[in-house]
Amino acid sequence: MPAPADGEVLVKNLWLSLDPYMRGRMSDAKSYVKGVDIGEVMVGQTVGEVLESKNPALKKGDKVLTQTGWQLYGTAKEVTKVRDGVPLSYYLGVLGMPGLTAYFGLKELGQPKAGETVVVSAASGAVGSVVGQLAKIWGCRAVGIAGGPEKCAYVKNELGFDECLDYKGGKLREQLKDIDVYFDNVGGEILDTALARMKLFGRVVVCGTISDYNATDPYRVRNWRAILVNRLKVQGMIVFDWKDRYGEALKALAGYLAEGKLKTRESIVEGIDNAPQGLVGLLKGENFGKQLVRLG
Amino acid sequence: MPAPADGEVLVKNLWLSLDPYMRGRMSDAKSYVKGVDIGEVMVGQTVGEVLESKNPALKKGDKVLTQTGWQLYGTAKEVTKVRDGVPLSYYLGVLGMPGLTAYFGLKELGQPKAGETVVVSAASGAVGSVVGQLAKIWGCRAVGIAGGPEKCAYVKNELGFDECLDYKGGKLREQLKDIDVYFDNVGGEILDTALARMKLFGRVVVCGTISDYNATDPYRVRNWRAILVNRLKVQGMIVFDWKDRYGEALKALAGYLAEGKLKTRESIVEGIDNAPQGLVGLLKGENFGKQLVRLG
Repeated sequence: MPAPADGEVLVKNLWLSLDPYMRGRMSDAKSYVKGVDIGEVMVGQTVGEVLESKNPALKKGDKVLTQTGWQLYGTAKEVTKVRDGVPLSYYLGVLGMPGLTAYFGLKELGQPKAGETVVVSAASGAVGSVVGQLAKIWGCRAVGIAGGPEKCAYVKNELGFDECLDYKGGKLREQLKDIDVYFDNVGGEILDTALARMKLFGRVVVCGTISDYNATDPYRVRNWRAILVNRLKVQGMIVFDWKDRYGEALKALAGYLAEGKLKTRESIVEGIDNAPQGLVGLLKGENFGKQLVRLG
Repeated sequence: MPAPADGEVLVKNLWLSLDPYMRGRMSDAKSYVKGVDIGEVMVGQTVGEVLESKNPALKKGDKVLTQTGWQLYGTAKEVTKVRDGVPLSYYLGVLGMPGLTAYFGLKELGQPKAGETVVVSAASGAVGSVVGQLAKIWGCRAVGIAGGPEKCAYVKNELGFDECLDYKGGKLREQLKDIDVYFDNVGGEILDTALARMKLFGRVVVCGTISDYNATDPYRVRNWRAILVNRLKVQGMIVFDWKDRYGEALKALAGYLAEGKLKTRESIVEGIDNAPQGLVGLLKGENFGKQLVRLG
């Protein structure tokens, strides 16, 4: 058991978040933060309970959001105290990085106007599910892309998207059209198809390229010229860039949750021993909504 | 000889502009305007002299900018009267579409800040040569990309860019680095290489894809993920979108010309019979600066 240094807390982790970005941390390829070396603790966000505090702002029993990674106990200096009120796991999903990513990516980069069509890939995932629901809340038509009829039914019937297209159906090119905002979580062929189906002055939010995370050679984008022809605005989205405004987003998201306008679902694997398999499943698209590991 | 209808003028064309976009007009592929059908007059901007006017705002002898295309005489309703003062051919180059494209593309989409590095491909061309000179005027470091030592010497020594890289030298990947703004006139491998060498929060202006204009299959972009990793902003540039602000740009460009801060060079083919060969040469990169056909 580690001992907290001055200013630190010792935390017993209750929930571990699994996220697609983790695959990138296991690679040497250049990315927006450095990878995890062999022998280091795998990174990850957790929610836990303070067991011992050497930080005057926190006390035993407080619930906190930390970056202690894939372990049952950890010491940390940078922690965020969270309130009870909502399930603790929400701070890793709809009220955590995925929710914040959806909020800023759609609002600031997608710049949706009421009446426009917003298309989001990985629509049943932690980010995509929030993107489409926010699009509806903000007066847009929300179209999801997901894999298989079960996920599509969930996206349409439970999450309330106007439409959900099954990319496994092989008709995406015909089904997609007149896209004002495309929020891309997957890259690859789905992205390429969407690029060709954007409207004039459309916006593309490049948020993830999960289809490439296991590839040795990246997918090559064919429809680049659509950016010119339709004067698209294509931008990369990383949530850390918006950290000065997290408070604003959390207030909005918590409000929508309380009003019942924002629904969320979690896929849970039990125990840290199952975390690797949970991540593999996430990368295969087996999850519905936020993928979590229950630790305590 | 055509006769002008009411509101029209009959124009004797003196200069015909040749531009890369013309290749696109000869294709059935979807683009931002429709193509030219077989049997139609090939489109193109011209500067000419009014021979006969049925438009009360214009009289015989006036010099006008028109869209009468590849012909010696034409009638037109939409014409812009130009002033003498500068060579008439400038209205097809530095004070015409290419200059306006450079101005709005760099200023509004590139958003260069003093001290930043602006890289432009086809740097010796009609658009690229203005982009780099504006970058210098606005306090940036200007790096050109051009084909061959002769063009590079022109770009650096005559146009005053800080540097010019010869893409035929095969070292572009090592030579390009820390790009804040990449103004792309060519697409293809040069674009792909530049994408991988952008700085955090860099801007890419997608203005042309000349390397693809003759391809049956478009180039496929490998470094898409750089948009995410470096939070790039990539936007398509078509000059028509800025027509409400042409006056502002022309005033600025004419001012820089008068002050000697903006230099321009023209490649001229003689006579309409040589126009097709002039366009082929342009697409092969044989021109220096603005490619024109002298008609009168």
